Amino acid sequence: MPKRRLLTPGPTQVPEAARLSLAQEAGHHRTPEFVATFAAVLDGLRYVFATQNDCIVLACSGTGAMEAAVVNTVPRGGKAIVLSAGLFAKRWGDIARVFGVDVVEHVVPWGRAIDPSDVARFGTLMESSTGVAHDIEAIGREVRKTSALFVVDGISGAGAIECLTDDWGIDILVVGSQKALMLPPGLGFLSVSEKAWRRIGATPNQSFYFDLQLHRQKLREGPTTPWTPAHTLIGALAHNLRMIRSEGLANILARNRRLAAATRAGMQAIGLSLFAERPADGMTAVRVPAGIDAGFLLKQVEQRFGVKLAGGQGALKGKILRVAHFGQIDDLDLLSAVGALEMVLAEAGRLDELGAGVTAFMQALVEVPVMGTAS
Amino acid sequence: MPKRRLLTPGPTQVPEAARLSLAQEAGHHRTPEFVATFAAVLDGLRYVFATQNDCIVLACSGTGAMEAAVVNTVPRGGKAIVLSAGLFAKRWGDIARVFGVDVVEHVVPWGRAIDPSDVARFGTLMESSTGVAHDIEAIGREVRKTSALFVVDGISGAGAIECLTDDWGIDILVVGSQKALMLPPGLGFLSVSEKAWRRIGATPNQSFYFDLQLHRQKLREGPTTPWTPAHTLIGALAHNLRMIRSEGLANILARNRRLAAATRAGMQAIGLSLFAERPADGMTAVRVPAGIDAGFLLKQVEQRFGVKLAGGQGALKGKILRVAHFGQIDDLDLLSAVGALEMVLAEAGRLDELGAGVTAFMQALVEVPVMGTAS
Repeated sequence: MPKRRLLTPGPTQVPEAARLSLAQEAGHHRTPEFVATFAAVLDGLRYVFATQNDCIVLACSGTGAMEAAVVNTVPRGGKAIVLSAGLFAKRWGDIARVFGVDVVEHVVPWGRAIDPSDVARFGTLMESSTGVAHDIEAIGREVRKTSALFVVDGISGAGAIECLTDDWGIDILVVGSQKALMLPPGLGFLSVSEKAWRRIGATPNQSFYFDLQLHRQKLREGPTTPWTPAHTLIGALAHNLRMIRSEGLANILARNRRLAAATRAGMQAIGLSLFAERPADGMTAVRVPAGIDAGFLLKQVEQRFGVKLAGGQGALKGKILRVAHFGQIDDLDLLSAVGALEMVLAEAGRLDELGAGVTAFMQALVEVPVMGTAS
Repeated sequence: MPKRRLLTPGPTQVPEAARLSLAQEAGHHRTPEFVATFAAVLDGLRYVFATQNDCIVLACSGTGAMEAAVVNTVPRGGKAIVLSAGLFAKRWGDIARVFGVDVVEHVVPWGRAIDPSDVARFGTLMESSTGVAHDIEAIGREVRKTSALFVVDGISGAGAIECLTDDWGIDILVVGSQKALMLPPGLGFLSVSEKAWRRIGATPNQSFYFDLQLHRQKLREGPTTPWTPAHTLIGALAHNLRMIRSEGLANILARNRRLAAATRAGMQAIGLSLFAERPADGMTAVRVPAGIDAGFLLKQVEQRFGVKLAGGQGALKGKILRVAHFGQIDDLDLLSAVGALEMVLAEAGRLDELGAGVTAFMQALVEVPVMGTAS
């Protein structure tokens, strides 16, 4: 069995300090110790999301946090415009329809970015099914002119690529734990603006578990949570947020940009073309060449080298490969991934000679200066 | 800082094998490895819940699993009878009302057990806010005569005290991870009978995240989950379920019964009287003597000895103490708890001499034969 290298756009590698904290005896969650940890975590989330808004922490996956955003802001019979350009963006519509919302789906082909001149309500920062970064800043500028709330799925994007929640006018940002926050799955986060709180206050209650007003009330008392929190994950998150602060978010985003540029160069040099029209710096999605199945490549790099990449989802199954560059994933992890793909492609007779991918990767990496070093 | 001893009725002590598994590099959840682990976990849950029914695993706390039971089975305008005898039983009504359910609350005083002749729909196996075990078997006998579903909150009871889901006619059993299953919080479980599935199929969809039919469909394909599961917790649960099987559920329940008898004897010998009319074998709730505050005792045993017990909730705050005897909590953990309380009470001038509590505890323990040994 080869050593495992998890390079999927979630779940992602969990830093050692966080993992070791998960191995500790769990304390109780109704204690001054947990209140202090939770307060630090909330502060750290505001830093990563670039917001002064309340941050809500739920025990659920990202889809649960999306549902929380929907049920708290749109009444039955209310209207939602969904900007849909991938599997996960489509989910906004699926959720909203269950709650009797009149959904207007603005669908653009998967892989394409949404035109900011389309007024939006529910959108996606980084669509992890396609690797597209949408221009949330520009879309936010349009939404801000209206009374509509701007709800953004930052489940995999937040902390991986720039996301200036307050500056861009994002009313609700939805984030998951197993992406750039480098935790196992199990926590969902929402930052909620004052404009959103007013709307929430005027929306009939449609969930008990996901009642954001109850959660907000408990933030004021403690901070704590109305129901039992997944407190060991929150404890582990405190470690990761300290790490993020210590490196500095700007440095992290710059690192991901360098890795993105190098990964794209490496992939293209071995015949894998970029899938996204406006690729996100947190991950890369590439098309596999005609006549070869993406599933075969995935299986080969995993079985031979322990490299775990992601395939396509839904309509893209078998057609694309996806690799993350956020969190703990670093230069040599990605050099390894490109090298593994290169070897497998060569063995399958799809490359005449070896070296172009890893060379292009390294070349791109050394061309982009590391932030904070002298030029 | 004294060494910590977590003896609360949830969160509870997590076995070392499970904790160490949480410290491992997380794998991906869309893999044959996870499918195999999940299948084993589902099988283990059926063993603990004594059922052949489908078991659903959700990423949420117990309250989320309760919400899932409500929204899948009762339409808006539908009717639910809630048997309420404690803080957590009351929650059934709070949830159901959010979803427009006509709730008939059958309230009995906290600490009292529910009379099985009251036909029930939503009830509680072990009410962890009061330590009462309700006679679910007898109540189930009544409900079975009707077309009503029998939904039981076994969040803290299942695996701690006897719960024969199929034999007792429990249509939906709701369980949490941080109790007798010995995990951190973050997973909710539901076992769902065929009668319940028929009702669910006829109930309009009121949640996307908690849509049990989608979950069931994914159990058939894999088994897997429709949304990202909290897969590291599920991996840790596999260890705990192996441990439970290896000891044998009957032996575990017998052990908890012995510990319950000994704990009650020890507590009563130091002036702490039982709160529950029909005490559960998974935990003990005791009243503190007049003139002494439960909060003071809790603080003393924690600061002096690291013993973490739980206090009263809601109307019982300051009036009762609660200690668990399930999962990893063993004979000497509870001897320690009784001894710590005894010393603190003596120092507060509430006991004339030391030794009665721990002696009564040990006496009761040796009087009850350990199952499986020669008499």
